[in-house]
Amino acid sequence: MSTDTQALQAEVDRLRLELKTFHVDAGVEKISIGNYLLTRLAQLDVTSMFGLPGDFNLGFLASPTQRIWSKTTPRSTGSEIADGYARIKEGSIGVLTTTFGVGELSAMNGIAGAFSEMVPVLHIVGVPNTVQQKTRPLLHHTLGDGRYDAYGKAASQFTICQQYLMDTQTAAEKIDHAITECITKVPNFLYHTCGGFAHFDPSRPVRSTSPFLPTSSIEEISSERLKIPLSHDIPFNQPEMEQAVVDLIYGRVKAANGDVVVIVDACVIRHSVRKEVDELLKVTGFPVYATPMGKTAVDESYFRYGGIYIGSLTPPDVKEKVENAKLILSIGSLGSDFNTGNFSWNIPKTRQIEFHSTYTEVNFARFDNIGMKHMLPKLSERLRDFYPPGHRLPVPAFIKQLPEENTPVISHLWFWPRVGYFFRPKDVIITETGTANFGILDVPLPSGAILLNQILWGSIGWSVGSTLGAALAAKDVGMERVILFVGDGSLQLSVQEISPMIRKGLKPIIFVLNNKGYSIERYIHGKYRRVPFVPPFGYNDVANWKWSSLLDTLNDGGKHSTASYTVDNKEELNELLDNEAFAAADNLQLVEVMMDALDAPQTLERQAELTGKGNAYAA
Amino acid sequence: MSTDTQALQAEVDRLRLELKTFHVDAGVEKISIGNYLLTRLAQLDVTSMFGLPGDFNLGFLASPTQRIWSKTTPRSTGSEIADGYARIKEGSIGVLTTTFGVGELSAMNGIAGAFSEMVPVLHIVGVPNTVQQKTRPLLHHTLGDGRYDAYGKAASQFTICQQYLMDTQTAAEKIDHAITECITKVPNFLYHTCGGFAHFDPSRPVRSTSPFLPTSSIEEISSERLKIPLSHDIPFNQPEMEQAVVDLIYGRVKAANGDVVVIVDACVIRHSVRKEVDELLKVTGFPVYATPMGKTAVDESYFRYGGIYIGSLTPPDVKEKVENAKLILSIGSLGSDFNTGNFSWNIPKTRQIEFHSTYTEVNFARFDNIGMKHMLPKLSERLRDFYPPGHRLPVPAFIKQLPEENTPVISHLWFWPRVGYFFRPKDVIITETGTANFGILDVPLPSGAILLNQILWGSIGWSVGSTLGAALAAKDVGMERVILFVGDGSLQLSVQEISPMIRKGLKPIIFVLNNKGYSIERYIHGKYRRVPFVPPFGYNDVANWKWSSLLDTLNDGGKHSTASYTVDNKEELNELLDNEAFAAADNLQLVEVMMDALDAPQTLERQAELTGKGNAYAA
Repeated sequence: MSTDTQALQAEVDRLRLELKTFHVDAGVEKISIGNYLLTRLAQLDVTSMFGLPGDFNLGFLASPTQRIWSKTTPRSTGSEIADGYARIKEGSIGVLTTTFGVGELSAMNGIAGAFSEMVPVLHIVGVPNTVQQKTRPLLHHTLGDGRYDAYGKAASQFTICQQYLMDTQTAAEKIDHAITECITKVPNFLYHTCGGFAHFDPSRPVRSTSPFLPTSSIEEISSERLKIPLSHDIPFNQPEMEQAVVDLIYGRVKAANGDVVVIVDACVIRHSVRKEVDELLKVTGFPVYATPMGKTAVDESYFRYGGIYIGSLTPPDVKEKVENAKLILSIGSLGSDFNTGNFSWNIPKTRQIEFHSTYTEVNFARFDNIGMKHMLPKLSERLRDFYPPGHRLPVPAFIKQLPEENTPVISHLWFWPRVGYFFRPKDVIITETGTANFGILDVPLPSGAILLNQILWGSIGWSVGSTLGAALAAKDVGMERVILFVGDGSLQLSVQEISPMIRKGLKPIIFVLNNKGYSIERYIHGKYRRVPFVPPFGYNDVANWKWSSLLDTLNDGGKHSTASYTVDNKEELNELLDNEAFAAADNLQLVEVMMDALDAPQTLERQAELTGKGNAYAA
Repeated sequence: MSTDTQALQAEVDRLRLELKTFHVDAGVEKISIGNYLLTRLAQLDVTSMFGLPGDFNLGFLASPTQRIWSKTTPRSTGSEIADGYARIKEGSIGVLTTTFGVGELSAMNGIAGAFSEMVPVLHIVGVPNTVQQKTRPLLHHTLGDGRYDAYGKAASQFTICQQYLMDTQTAAEKIDHAITECITKVPNFLYHTCGGFAHFDPSRPVRSTSPFLPTSSIEEISSERLKIPLSHDIPFNQPEMEQAVVDLIYGRVKAANGDVVVIVDACVIRHSVRKEVDELLKVTGFPVYATPMGKTAVDESYFRYGGIYIGSLTPPDVKEKVENAKLILSIGSLGSDFNTGNFSWNIPKTRQIEFHSTYTEVNFARFDNIGMKHMLPKLSERLRDFYPPGHRLPVPAFIKQLPEENTPVISHLWFWPRVGYFFRPKDVIITETGTANFGILDVPLPSGAILLNQILWGSIGWSVGSTLGAALAAKDVGMERVILFVGDGSLQLSVQEISPMIRKGLKPIIFVLNNKGYSIERYIHGKYRRVPFVPPFGYNDVANWKWSSLLDTLNDGGKHSTASYTVDNKEELNELLDNEAFAAADNLQLVEVMMDALDAPQTLERQAELTGKGNAYAA
């Protein structure tokens, strides 16, 4: 059977089973609504969920969730932990549980970030019971004006589906619908923008869904539906149209005589088409490049991989190779400012084909509802004979040599290639918005390593919670070390999350780039604001914490083994990175890396200059 | 001239001046929009504003805001700092500046809290420039779908006024309108609820307003309007109707023959009628009681003050005195669950008169647009001859004796009266949601002391940011020590804010009640969840931090003097509180108070029992 036929057969089986439930009239097993939801999560292999206890979710938390429940520390990071978890655990989802008002609103920035970056997060909110929902008394955690729907209305801006569990008749169906929306990434609304280089996947696939869980929803319902697993399947493309598009692309590739490059971007990861892309690359031999958000979508050790394309900020040899190809296949692109060198892709539509989750664009022609997931395998099949011509195009070697510098100071120029040698296969590497996001770009990562970043949403502090979630998920999927690069300013925002990391026995290596403030902002807004800051202190400076005593302070009565290091110069960092015990990551380790406040990766310097101009401040 | 005439004259002057600006046609001084806004804030004596830098607000921050700008650490607490600042500085406002998306959404919980608790907070959001607002490119901090209005739509649920500064023609007017809304507490919408004992001030006065500040708004405008100060005046009552209501109330008081008690609540503080209430009390001699949210609305050392009335949770002697009075004057009430002993006020409408900001209710009769601010002085005048009969009613002495306990363990029963002896006039006392909010209730506070709590919104962690804001404001208004009581669980949520406290040389005393978790939640949801928690740990437990090393870790390179203490028993606490150097509060001090995980103030135990029942969990 072909893949399509298999999928269709599975769908038929599923529908038959679903129909069957309507005929069940006796011997139904009962289950509480809370446990129904938890069973669905277990079926998706959700092994942790996150959030804070609150009196409107205690009933739910007291159910068997205890097994998977992880308390977070600041309220605001629960959504970011769920986000990090979901990014690592493809096919599963991140789950966050909060309480009415105070909890759910605290999570809003992280929820909006998951929405923006298309990460599947399920937000479960414990709300007052169904009677109170109707009588709306002046309870704590309310706005004092009887509006019980205000939080949901606000959340609707950042979620594609909301379900209110108000009765036993519809609860199971609503839960299934919310989770299915979350895992199948069903398009919700279309919205086109028109400025700059804002081409992007307009389907705005799934982000976050919110079944609200009133405290009284421990009532029981039938468990019958649980026998039918929820489906991850997404709609097939219309076959004749899909065939026509494949033919059209084949013609373009043939006309280019194999002078074709591929650019992979964020949506390759988000829409789970890594395998389909790998197959295309394997059969064609086309050179492949990644955007910043697409980094590690393709294995960076792949011999036809040439590194990062980021418009005008691209290294010259790569830039020339990409922009001069006769045809560019752009897969899963997300054209945000920081992902495109401030909208500076220099690739005319006449030489570009775009593959998205819900449409395909061949030069100027748009084909709606022709999604890449189902089409890419057919295209690979069709292009199989392009292997030799596809190989003709040379690819610059993606390597990063350690520069010679005759100063002991740890510069960004030296630091990033140096840590590049430290990475291993199956590392999860997380970079914070700011210097780290840019510094990592031209460091080749080993086979099987995964990079997480949040380049579109760009909420500083995100990486810390995300590291906690990613570290929990990494254990489930066989990834090994988890390595975070975060600036001192960003870490201060969500530093508490290190405490549950310690408590749960997680062992990330946390590199704290101590440059005494927000270097990225110093770069964006005018050099004259960079140095000596006005007393009492400039707005881009932060307090100089004693990072070496942090782990000891946050440790749970000193129960867990941790280690802290401060490295002042290259020699100290070399020594630490070469230390096998350190590299083995057997306990949670924090490394404070002393850097100059005015140093930054070159790509960032140039990006910041462009952003500063865009913001149009007077100098 | 009477007060009314004076106010009218001032209004006439103001209108004349405003008219004059329409005739100015030459020699207009120019000012940037950012500086216009800052000048308005300076006119309101705003000496600090709060938030984090972000690339869409850097242009604004780089303007002379630097003088008043305070960077916060976690993004989520900026709004809570502004809230604390506004609570102390009556007549002024709290100001928060954030950046597009990531910043403003992070502040949403605190903004909603200020809305709920009716605290005037102005939220200034730096957004992409006016050209980008129209072309909507795929910038970082956007949702990736071109919706630039989503954040504003979400915020509209929690703010009474939003202004988008999009051009130079309307910017000044929009700024003035937003700030005026904020300071005059103009009713926005009416919404009636009907469940439980949900009587409350339905005018939902001002909370937060949001002028959005695009990065390009450094353009210049006329400074002419700045000559007219913004008016705090609220509408007068219709004179004949007001007179009729005063007469009616006079009749009721006369019928009660002076057997009258007064209950003051939150809105006495929020609507600035403390002076008017004091005058009423002075001329009548009526006994007065406060609700939890009304505590310190009336000086607690006042000889006719009898303590806290909280429905069925009230101490028996107070309960009897309040509920048996022939007439109860309820001023500025806010009938939320935790403020009323779970809606257990036992006062029939036939014996109650309610005074609110925008209406008055005499038994069952409602008089719209008769607000207490203007009516109370007239009522006091009318009731002047009630002084002797008003004095007849005895008031139980509001004292709290230290109980004899033959254990060294610091119990809540002992702790709260003990710290009562430590308080001084002009202390600002801040209590966190949870045990502290309840423990403080029956401790009499000295003359001129102010208590801050957040009983309606109840967002744990609020008190920490609020302490930072309150401490800055306290310096401006001549208040002295700032004393925070916070549980270890709550402090972990927003602990970073201690860092800017240290950096700014603020000297609060922070009592950390270390009970190893969320005791309030343990009480709300069933005793069996209180002790030995399931491994790896129960959801109401928190990590046991090394509190004694916290200040050292967060200190800015050890530049500032701080002190940390851990007190394990009564003797150690006594010794510390009696230490004059400690009591002088000359540096920032943190006191970890070791308490039993299952101990709580009695009022909390009983409230939690009621809330647990309301939530209707299966036991």
